[in-house]
Amino acid sequence: MAEDRVMQSLLLDFYGELLTDKQRECCELHFNEDLSLAEIAEQCGVSRQGVWDNIRRGVAALEEIEAKTGLIRRFSETQNGLDRLDGTVRALLALPLEPEGRELAEKLRQEIRALRTRG
Amino acid sequence: MAEDRVMQSLLLDFYGELLTDKQRECCELHFNEDLSLAEIAEQCGVSRQGVWDNIRRGVAALEEIEAKTGLIRRFSETQNGLDRLDGTVRALLALPLEPEGRELAEKLRQEIRALRTRG
Repeated sequence: MAEDRVMQSLLLDFYGELLTDKQRECCELHFNEDLSLAEIAEQCGVSRQGVWDNIRRGVAALEEIEAKTGLIRRFSETQNGLDRLDGTVRALLALPLEPEGRELAEKLRQEIRALRTRG
Repeated sequence: MAEDRVMQSLLLDFYGELLTDKQRECCELHFNEDLSLAEIAEQCGVSRQGVWDNIRRGVAALEEIEAKTGLIRRFSETQNGLDRLDGTVRALLALPLEPEGRELAEKLRQEIRALRTRG
C-alpha cells in the first residue's frame, strides 16, 4: 500500500496537470494531503460520491497515461542509475587520492546529488 | 528549424502514444520519416488536407502536454547534468591515478554514458 501511495504521488507529479481541475484537486487532497472522502466533500462542496468518482476517474486517467508513455518508468531507471553512480563515487572517495583527484571526485558527488534531488 | 525538428521528435517520443492513431501516424511519417504531405496522403489513403489537419492537431496536442507537464524540459536538464558529470570524469581521467582509482573512474564514465544514451 505504501508503494501504491508513492506511485500515486509520482503519477500526480508527472501527469496531474493533464487531469480536469476537479479530478486533480480531489486526487491531490486525497493522496498528497491525506484527507478522507468526507473531508474533501466538505471542502469542495461536492458529494462524497462525486469526490470518489473524481478520484477513480483521475487515477484511471493517470495510470493510462503512464501505461502509454512509460515516462515514470524511464525516470525511475535514471534515478537508479544515479544511485549506482553515487555508489561508485563513494568507492572512489574511499581510496587514497591526490588533492586534485579528491576535489574532482567530491564535485562529482555533488553533481550527482543535485540530479537525484531534482528528479 | 533544425531545433524545431529535434523538439518535434522529442515530443513524439515522449507523448506520441497519447495522440489518436491517425495523428501519430501522420506526425511520425512527416517528422521522423521526412515524408511530404502528398506522400503521406497517398500512403494512408487520406486527402492532403486530412494529413495536414492530423499533423496540425497532433503537434498542438503534443505542445499542450509539454506546456502542462514540462517533462521534456525536466529530461533535458537531467541530460545537461549528465553532460557536466561526463566532463568532470574526463578531467579526473586526465590526472595520474592509481590503477584502482582509474578503474572506478572508467566505470563511472561507462555508467554515465549508459544513462545518456538511454535518455
